[in-house]
Amino acid sequence: MRGRPLSRPNPSVGAVIVKHGKVIGRSWTQPGGRPHAEKMALDQAGACAKGATLYASLEPCAHVSERGPSCSDAIIEAGIAKLVYAVTDPDPRTAGSGAEKLRAAGIKVSQMENAAATASLSGYLTRQSGARPFVTLKLAMSLDGFIALPSGESQWITGEASRAHVHSRRAQSDAILVGGGTWRGDLPRLDVRLEGLENRSPQRIVLTRGVVPDDVKIINRPEQIGSLEDVQYLYVEGGAETAASFLKADLVDRMELYRAPIILGSGRSAISDIGLGTLADAHGRWMLADQRMLGSDTYEAYDRVRPSTGEGN
Amino acid sequence: MRGRPLSRPNPSVGAVIVKHGKVIGRSWTQPGGRPHAEKMALDQAGACAKGATLYASLEPCAHVSERGPSCSDAIIEAGIAKLVYAVTDPDPRTAGSGAEKLRAAGIKVSQMENAAATASLSGYLTRQSGARPFVTLKLAMSLDGFIALPSGESQWITGEASRAHVHSRRAQSDAILVGGGTWRGDLPRLDVRLEGLENRSPQRIVLTRGVVPDDVKIINRPEQIGSLEDVQYLYVEGGAETAASFLKADLVDRMELYRAPIILGSGRSAISDIGLGTLADAHGRWMLADQRMLGSDTYEAYDRVRPSTGEGN
Repeated sequence: MRGRPLSRPNPSVGAVIVKHGKVIGRSWTQPGGRPHAEKMALDQAGACAKGATLYASLEPCAHVSERGPSCSDAIIEAGIAKLVYAVTDPDPRTAGSGAEKLRAAGIKVSQMENAAATASLSGYLTRQSGARPFVTLKLAMSLDGFIALPSGESQWITGEASRAHVHSRRAQSDAILVGGGTWRGDLPRLDVRLEGLENRSPQRIVLTRGVVPDDVKIINRPEQIGSLEDVQYLYVEGGAETAASFLKADLVDRMELYRAPIILGSGRSAISDIGLGTLADAHGRWMLADQRMLGSDTYEAYDRVRPSTGEGN
Repeated sequence: MRGRPLSRPNPSVGAVIVKHGKVIGRSWTQPGGRPHAEKMALDQAGACAKGATLYASLEPCAHVSERGPSCSDAIIEAGIAKLVYAVTDPDPRTAGSGAEKLRAAGIKVSQMENAAATASLSGYLTRQSGARPFVTLKLAMSLDGFIALPSGESQWITGEASRAHVHSRRAQSDAILVGGGTWRGDLPRLDVRLEGLENRSPQRIVLTRGVVPDDVKIINRPEQIGSLEDVQYLYVEGGAETAASFLKADLVDRMELYRAPIILGSGRSAISDIGLGTLADAHGRWMLADQRMLGSDTYEAYDRVRPSTGEGN
């Protein structure tokens, strides 16, 4: 998680080297993708790496790139005795051959699948398997599901802690997307306003058929997110039409709900019509993945249950 | 909580007698209000009560009723050495005189205020201070605040565990109220369908100007709930207009939300317009009091922050 999203276009991998019960190397993929986590950790361990165990969230790469040697080679060279990794690298240049190569070199290799490790690589894995970014839909609303009063007043539904949390989530995204209506109506800054993280403000994208400033990207339909190169994590902030269009296209992997302890009774809905036929069609799609208090608000994350089909629902 | 709601019209009090670190008596107000919790616990303890400590959620009554002697007299007679109670009885016939009488008899008396004890007496306390029942508003909805599809389809939003929980809440209520539209449209049974608790099905009340069967009570406006004699706990189940009318009248003490992990996008809102002017007016009214999973649904209880004014908002 430490390397996200600056590791792009590479996956953000974590690596820890342990010897005699002590951590002797610990790192993650560096900005721009190099050095890799394993290489950084091996450099920290130095000669002590000989005989040690390396834990990595992703299978070490097997392919030599023009940007440096493969991690498999570096691990063998350092004399690592044992490797434990969580996720098989879907990159066809590795895809199991990293583990094989290390086994062939006499290293004891085992895979330990782990939901947290998989989640930490969700952007990379979604790009590899679905040729698109991992999409998080943010919703900030009242207990009865409104994001603004009928008058349009929306500042503020949620409290300071929630809004700071949203900025931290922006900082972990490669790009933020809003709809044309939100863009023109609210003129949102869509930047990161957390001290020390201002430079993490992501690429801004607008879903519109209209005109936007030069430094803002445009897509016309949710299905075009595959074309957003180098974007592993896309953070969709609304409005209701945009939220609905992503849900209808079955392109939301995670929903993050910020709920203020208020009742509005009427107002603007968080999500427009998604063309649902029956209640049965609504069930089985989401499961609660995270939950906490942010001041007096509640934060909940729901993860997609079904694998994405890439088709509409 | 064990005596709720069958103790009506009396408060449901809990009492525990402890001697040398052991519980020697433990009871709660019995159905119909007699015997009182203290009397039951004293009978269990018998002669051992001499020199023991009695803990009670409510100040023991000081007044002799035609239905039996006062608990204060019974406590003195049993030789209890120490009394710890949580809530001062607002009944003007006691209101501190129970504690005084016990002190005068040489018993060591102390009050230990306790939120759980206060909550366990909320129906009684609301009747005493506000001359009306404690009102719980139930809402069962999707994550985006809908209780049905636009077609009206509403079976089921929430899962089995949530629905069983609702029945357990009905069993703890003296009366259930729905609006005329829900009554005529859904023909709800509004009974308790939990094995062993079928006889706990509460009085049914409809908020309407229309006609209902003989065994169902009617009120025309939320403000008339004060006239519902012997009702300490009123459970309001909807629909949206009824929910809104109780909220507008500032007559909701607790909201209990059952939320299924589904998105509907459009449908029937949980709550109709409540005439809110600005967002500022919505804040500061509710705080999260309880939260848990019920199957894949989330249950949240929000308690009123401000004391009721009895006036509209």
